[in-house]
Amino acid sequence: MTDGARQRMIDGTVTLLAQRGLDGTSFSEVLERTGAPRGSIYHHFPDGKDQLVAAAVDLAGSRALAALEQWNGGTPAEITAGFVGLWRRLLSVSNLSAGCSVLAVTVATSSPDLLDRSAAAFRSWRLRLAELFVEGGVSADAAAGFAATLVSATEGAVVLSRAERSMEPFELVAAQLAEDALRL
Amino acid sequence: MTDGARQRMIDGTVTLLAQRGLDGTSFSEVLERTGAPRGSIYHHFPDGKDQLVAAAVDLAGSRALAALEQWNGGTPAEITAGFVGLWRRLLSVSNLSAGCSVLAVTVATSSPDLLDRSAAAFRSWRLRLAELFVEGGVSADAAAGFAATLVSATEGAVVLSRAERSMEPFELVAAQLAEDALRL
Repeated sequence: MTDGARQRMIDGTVTLLAQRGLDGTSFSEVLERTGAPRGSIYHHFPDGKDQLVAAAVDLAGSRALAALEQWNGGTPAEITAGFVGLWRRLLSVSNLSAGCSVLAVTVATSSPDLLDRSAAAFRSWRLRLAELFVEGGVSADAAAGFAATLVSATEGAVVLSRAERSMEPFELVAAQLAEDALRL
Repeated sequence: MTDGARQRMIDGTVTLLAQRGLDGTSFSEVLERTGAPRGSIYHHFPDGKDQLVAAAVDLAGSRALAALEQWNGGTPAEITAGFVGLWRRLLSVSNLSAGCSVLAVTVATSSPDLLDRSAAAFRSWRLRLAELFVEGGVSADAAAGFAATLVSATEGAVVLSRAERSMEPFELVAAQLAEDALRL
């Protein structure tokens, strides 16, 4: 029952949420994927599935937030291409079968705690992106609007591409965002 | 067992999917909301829940597609404001508790048939929007890119606003899209 096992369960939950949604993510499936013993899930997550999902939403949020720092100091075009690239990679490595775990939780939960955590993740991304745009010379208002649009459009484009099982909608949106970033 | 009862069940399913996601949409809940007798669901949807959900995705897709015709002949700015307004109204009447039923199905299903239907809905929206933009004087390439972005960004913005339980992200995206439409 190491912290490593706990971390693997949370990691596995992020992946399952992204692939199957909230209800497709069961304790049994998480155990099967991570090879953790059954007792370990109740040890680490005594409050049940919502506690595990909460940790997964937090992890997905902080992981993408940390990834943004690669483009700290970049131009708006570089930051935009970087953020879009994170999602292109997710679609590509999953063969268009996975999306955003935070979005999957948002549309399937009525838990105020899970909604709060999803909100915190989305908010942290758009606020940090806006800060990076401002550091890149964009006005605060334009940065706030474009950052919200960048997060929303990539989230939506991932869903459209999963449904169509084609990169076409995602790449149309990526090209539009790249063009818009040059105008900032 | 009239067609009216069938239609009410499909309508109710669209609403439930938008509020609770795919797994929160059960036959029992649909019956409760529509007041239909239990037998009627098996009569109209003998293949089970997926058949009801398939009809709901088709209905949600065709309903939004039909709504676009209000702005046929409009400027790109009017078409954009109209499409964004459909989603603003959904958030507003549901007190930020409902989103897109097609998106909710996409992220929670592994059924190829349901994915095909979701894809057809999203595709019909973006292709029709692109046609309307072209009729409004926009080049085919610019229309395709902006239409895909309009659908994706509003879909994503609805999710962000549901999570944050605030219209702020949605309105930031709406303002950005309105500005972008003027540049087309």
